[in-house]
Amino acid sequence: MINYLKSIVKRINISRIKMKQEKIFTLLNEMSLDEKIGQLIQLSGEFFSASDISIGPIEKLGISKKMVNLCGSALNVVGAENIRRVQDQQMQKQPHHIPMLFMSDVIYGFKTIFPIPLGLGSSWDPKLVKRAYSVAAEEASASGNQVAFAPMVDVVHDARWGRVLESPGEDPYLNSVYSKNMVEGLQENLANKTGQVSCIKHYAAYGAVEAGREYNQVDMSLSNLYQNFLPPYKAGVKAGAGMVMTALTTLNGVPSTADKWLLSDVLRKKWKFNGIIISDYASIYELIKHGFARDSTDAALKAIDAGVDIDMKSPCYANGLHELVTNGTLDEEKINNAVLKVLNLKNQLGLFENPYFGASVEKEKNSILTPQKRKLARKLAQESLVLIQNKNNILPLKKDAKVALIGPYANSQKLIGMWAIHGNSKDTVTIADGLRQYTNNLTVTHGTDLCRDKALLKKLGFLTEEDINKIVSSPEKERLHIQNAFKAAKAADIIVLTLGEETYEAGEAGAKTNLNIAPNQLKLLDKLSQLNKPIILVLISGRPLVLTKVKDKVDAILESWFPGTEGGNAIADILFGKVNPSGRLTMSFPYASAQEPLYYNHLSTGRPENNSQHVGRFVSKYIDASARALYPFGYGLSYGKIKYSNLTISSERLFLDKPVKISLDIENLSDYDRKETVQLYIHQETASIVQPVKRLIDFTKIAISGHSSQHVEFYINASQLSFYDNIGRSHKESSKIQVYVGTNGVQLLKGKFDFINKRS
Amino acid sequence: MINYLKSIVKRINISRIKMKQEKIFTLLNEMSLDEKIGQLIQLSGEFFSASDISIGPIEKLGISKKMVNLCGSALNVVGAENIRRVQDQQMQKQPHHIPMLFMSDVIYGFKTIFPIPLGLGSSWDPKLVKRAYSVAAEEASASGNQVAFAPMVDVVHDARWGRVLESPGEDPYLNSVYSKNMVEGLQENLANKTGQVSCIKHYAAYGAVEAGREYNQVDMSLSNLYQNFLPPYKAGVKAGAGMVMTALTTLNGVPSTADKWLLSDVLRKKWKFNGIIISDYASIYELIKHGFARDSTDAALKAIDAGVDIDMKSPCYANGLHELVTNGTLDEEKINNAVLKVLNLKNQLGLFENPYFGASVEKEKNSILTPQKRKLARKLAQESLVLIQNKNNILPLKKDAKVALIGPYANSQKLIGMWAIHGNSKDTVTIADGLRQYTNNLTVTHGTDLCRDKALLKKLGFLTEEDINKIVSSPEKERLHIQNAFKAAKAADIIVLTLGEETYEAGEAGAKTNLNIAPNQLKLLDKLSQLNKPIILVLISGRPLVLTKVKDKVDAILESWFPGTEGGNAIADILFGKVNPSGRLTMSFPYASAQEPLYYNHLSTGRPENNSQHVGRFVSKYIDASARALYPFGYGLSYGKIKYSNLTISSERLFLDKPVKISLDIENLSDYDRKETVQLYIHQETASIVQPVKRLIDFTKIAISGHSSQHVEFYINASQLSFYDNIGRSHKESSKIQVYVGTNGVQLLKGKFDFINKRS
Repeated sequence: MINYLKSIVKRINISRIKMKQEKIFTLLNEMSLDEKIGQLIQLSGEFFSASDISIGPIEKLGISKKMVNLCGSALNVVGAENIRRVQDQQMQKQPHHIPMLFMSDVIYGFKTIFPIPLGLGSSWDPKLVKRAYSVAAEEASASGNQVAFAPMVDVVHDARWGRVLESPGEDPYLNSVYSKNMVEGLQENLANKTGQVSCIKHYAAYGAVEAGREYNQVDMSLSNLYQNFLPPYKAGVKAGAGMVMTALTTLNGVPSTADKWLLSDVLRKKWKFNGIIISDYASIYELIKHGFARDSTDAALKAIDAGVDIDMKSPCYANGLHELVTNGTLDEEKINNAVLKVLNLKNQLGLFENPYFGASVEKEKNSILTPQKRKLARKLAQESLVLIQNKNNILPLKKDAKVALIGPYANSQKLIGMWAIHGNSKDTVTIADGLRQYTNNLTVTHGTDLCRDKALLKKLGFLTEEDINKIVSSPEKERLHIQNAFKAAKAADIIVLTLGEETYEAGEAGAKTNLNIAPNQLKLLDKLSQLNKPIILVLISGRPLVLTKVKDKVDAILESWFPGTEGGNAIADILFGKVNPSGRLTMSFPYASAQEPLYYNHLSTGRPENNSQHVGRFVSKYIDASARALYPFGYGLSYGKIKYSNLTISSERLFLDKPVKISLDIENLSDYDRKETVQLYIHQETASIVQPVKRLIDFTKIAISGHSSQHVEFYINASQLSFYDNIGRSHKESSKIQVYVGTNGVQLLKGKFDFINKRS
Repeated sequence: MINYLKSIVKRINISRIKMKQEKIFTLLNEMSLDEKIGQLIQLSGEFFSASDISIGPIEKLGISKKMVNLCGSALNVVGAENIRRVQDQQMQKQPHHIPMLFMSDVIYGFKTIFPIPLGLGSSWDPKLVKRAYSVAAEEASASGNQVAFAPMVDVVHDARWGRVLESPGEDPYLNSVYSKNMVEGLQENLANKTGQVSCIKHYAAYGAVEAGREYNQVDMSLSNLYQNFLPPYKAGVKAGAGMVMTALTTLNGVPSTADKWLLSDVLRKKWKFNGIIISDYASIYELIKHGFARDSTDAALKAIDAGVDIDMKSPCYANGLHELVTNGTLDEEKINNAVLKVLNLKNQLGLFENPYFGASVEKEKNSILTPQKRKLARKLAQESLVLIQNKNNILPLKKDAKVALIGPYANSQKLIGMWAIHGNSKDTVTIADGLRQYTNNLTVTHGTDLCRDKALLKKLGFLTEEDINKIVSSPEKERLHIQNAFKAAKAADIIVLTLGEETYEAGEAGAKTNLNIAPNQLKLLDKLSQLNKPIILVLISGRPLVLTKVKDKVDAILESWFPGTEGGNAIADILFGKVNPSGRLTMSFPYASAQEPLYYNHLSTGRPENNSQHVGRFVSKYIDASARALYPFGYGLSYGKIKYSNLTISSERLFLDKPVKISLDIENLSDYDRKETVQLYIHQETASIVQPVKRLIDFTKIAISGHSSQHVEFYINASQLSFYDNIGRSHKESSKIQVYVGTNGVQLLKGKFDFINKRS
């Protein structure tokens, strides 16, 4: 037990144990069964409001007032004052005055909102992202939250899925690097109560929902699962994450929330995870809908038996566990084990000594949205933006250029995206405000609405009739908007057009089949195109969109995601060249919506598109679209030309004990200082499990001044060449290895070596 | 060996062994290694043309003239005279004068072309389909072909994939029933040389290519593979198919053509298949492109080791096997085993006594495209057409109705679809000719082209510049076409509009991302809609199309697939009510292209769309499309109302030894005689592997006269309730079972019983 505790201590990076372990055991022994069960249930804020108000939620969820009073953790309750009140109230009711844990969705910022994770991913700067997560945890902890439901590291292959917004992207290696850094960022200041425990999600493979449809089944081979989907969770566990959240989906016919193989065999035994496993929202109860459990009690049994410690927002544990123990179906030791994990975490966090953790009104005031944090958010946004197109080097703009800023996002603060639920868009810098720092020659017009389809807006689920009527202008007003925009454009030298998705079109349950920009927005673009003036498209979106037709109508495209609190500043910094764009895509952009799922590291087919054997029809493509991406993973532009050269591979052969060194030179041929993300891909030519056409195994983001050169080195060793078979075993096999170094989709140097699967 | 032979005899339904088995062994012993290898290679027709002509193909494929001369089988060589010539020529060259096998693509007819298999599937009449396959084999055997590369029984989930055209549909049970009947139909007259050996394809799960992209990877769990994809192949094996063809794809990272688990463990050992396994076209060579084999020799080794007997159209066996044996890598016994299977089949077919099999110019003349065969083709087409919509009972048309028949398929013979490669569209009855039998009041106009996108047409791979210029009218001509159509429509009472896909848009390598009808065709529809006259849409397509916007602009929709040689007649028979339409869809029609893959028997999610727990946003759907199909599997209309009633389940409990009887009454409330396909679905409420929301377990197609009733009975027994886990084991588990009986998507009676997984 001491070893176990030590490992927890190590995991959450707290240097000394607060309450003595014996006392925890004593406490556990003294607790009634219901008290124990209470530690395993998590409820949301409305249950802890004034007591008369909470009757509504209690009836809706169908649990007893008694169990609410014994509840061990809360979800998305925020605010130092509020949390201190709830903590006091609950500790008073809890017979042993055990403090609650407060957990919340802090996916990409708490009050200072960073770019959405798909944008953060595009920075290819894990250390910077680590700082962002550290800052988020600092704000959230000041507001009294000890656990962040983050990072979300699901590998995502399908832009139809709305929740790609929350993921760093489509690559297992890159997501793993981010996972490690995000976990470390969140947890690094736990000891002085300005960090948060990280809860990795959604275990496992939620990002592979079939047809990109939200909550749909996930079905895949074990080789695929081990190779492409599990690594980021594993990396987070290895980095010491204190918690793991299950996925809402089935994996190969078994709901992840009750998958004993996944939770116990892989996560606990193989990966040696000894933290807390929590269900996703109501997902234990949903085992019934899945057709995996007969009823609420059966669901509770299957979840706890599989290894789920805490039941988030469902009545199953609260109503079912007691009976399961008393009728002998469930061994109380299972419950004790889970409770011990919860109590231990509370103890590690020092809650028994100070139940408020970092919650302090003073700290909130001093730490939230500080200038330093805003600066970091601006920096992250700068690094996250991806310049997709820049015809004739139209960008950067000259200072004081005569700009018509047009479009629904021109003057909008809604730049923080769907799941920044604790953030406030009122804190956001607009694109207009950003541009005003660089030019006085600016006109700002709305142009058109983001979405004029009221039926669609209604389906998004958050917008009231009133909201919708506000969002959708009357036909007359719309005509006027277009007229004004056209007039402004006519008078300007450059058009900066902001188009994209409505906030609620992206994010959870924002799956969609049509990845094109809304028709009314495209109509505005067509109208403005008539002027034959340069058009800079600033795209705000939570996912890859289809730009096949758009790209030819504009000169430059800056994919800006939902860029966060400082988004407007960062966009302006890049448009005017104060900052050289360096973001690189981490998700493939399709030619057509129905090309999904689409990702760069797919397996080799027998009839590749560029195959000389089968020209014409009988190759792997669509008759109306390529097999490839319009803009692939790893793609992105910067200002100024760069030259890759002198690719050298240190040896023709790599042995188990002898890595090869890959080196190359990069020359910045331009006046611009810039950064470059050098990407290292390999392709294993033959293997007993067909390998991806290309997969990322290393990268480095370097700064390189104008007219200077840099030498870059990578080492490839045998461990990077392992892959998985269909029973989850790792293999290495001798083969020719193709090497590609550079920027994917723009320029890649090619080389090769032989991997000899033995010692030299 | 005798048992082995007996099983072959039984399998291919020949009652006596021709050449004595000892002689086969003697022959095998006498054959040189190269002769043996020759038996394992298959080449296409161009290799057997006049010798000087065949040098081109030989050089292209890269094999020796010697191996061509020793080649044991040919692909798609047809015509009695031609085959007799080639047989004579090759037997002369073969040292032991071993005759060749002739195999060909006879997927849905040889010269008399039936509807595409997706249409045949829609008939829900396996016995009738069996006759079609019997007739196809009769024609092909008269033309000298002993093996049909049919049936194709890949379960298909994705309408983007072009090859859905060749499959009976998306349901594993229905495809299994068809598989059995198709195999039996092909093989039933083998003994008197008017049948063909059936070669089931494409083993395994080729129909699950990711993103519907042709030749793309297939990746799935074993529970999914066993439950949803393997059953149709297994049913064909059990029905005695003599051959199996591998798939061009990888399954879980392993190319099916070299998948030892799939070919040896499952097919040979588990299913006890002892016939011939053949690769698909060049698929052994493509192991290199897949990244599974290092080179051609390695590919040969991996394929033969996995269990592939014949190498179709690749140089691997011809060039590699000899060396592999002589250098000791490959045991010659492996080759002997494969050769023995080939020689045995030749012996079973009596080729050693009569090398020409059924090849006879006389028989060709007498058996091909006979009136009886045309009658059967007409019947099949009648049963295959699916009435999707019939507002205000606009159909059937009155005799002599004043009809404007409009559209690119109005007067076209191109109704036989992409893979009727031995058929001739010149034999086809047009829709115009069909309608003329019912009305003299007919105008026929072209309306618009099928496709006016020259770039797309070029990508289809078969059309020359000249073809394309023929297909795409000049703008002036197009205007005239539309004018003429509009004028004709104006003068008529009813518009019959024929729209759909170009032949080469469907079929192999016809994958596409846009499932909408071509824009110019829709423009014509919009134009005609202005007249406010009834519009009957006759849709010609090789796959489900998106009809979301079309359906509101027309009164009736008749999905006619590529209906075959007698298509025009069958369409007319149905439009004018001589035949009551009875086809029911076997593939889901989506709301939107990017809803794919889409199929009715998907797993239950935790948050179904119609879930009261999660109204609004957080359910499993798209924000811009439903989770469901616009027209689901099993859906279809007939003329006249029908009433399902009195669903009775014989017992509240089903035990292992005690089936339940499901009975119901069906009343035809109309004057029309009609048929009804009564479909029986179940849903197992709980299981350790989540079960489909609904799955077909039985059906019956009954005839029911006007104003009469019929009583229908089904039995459900425990074996129908088994399902597979992720290591391929079959399970039964007690559960509530929901029962649905009726026509899916129109009306379903509901009931339930308890399955108790023990004896009563």
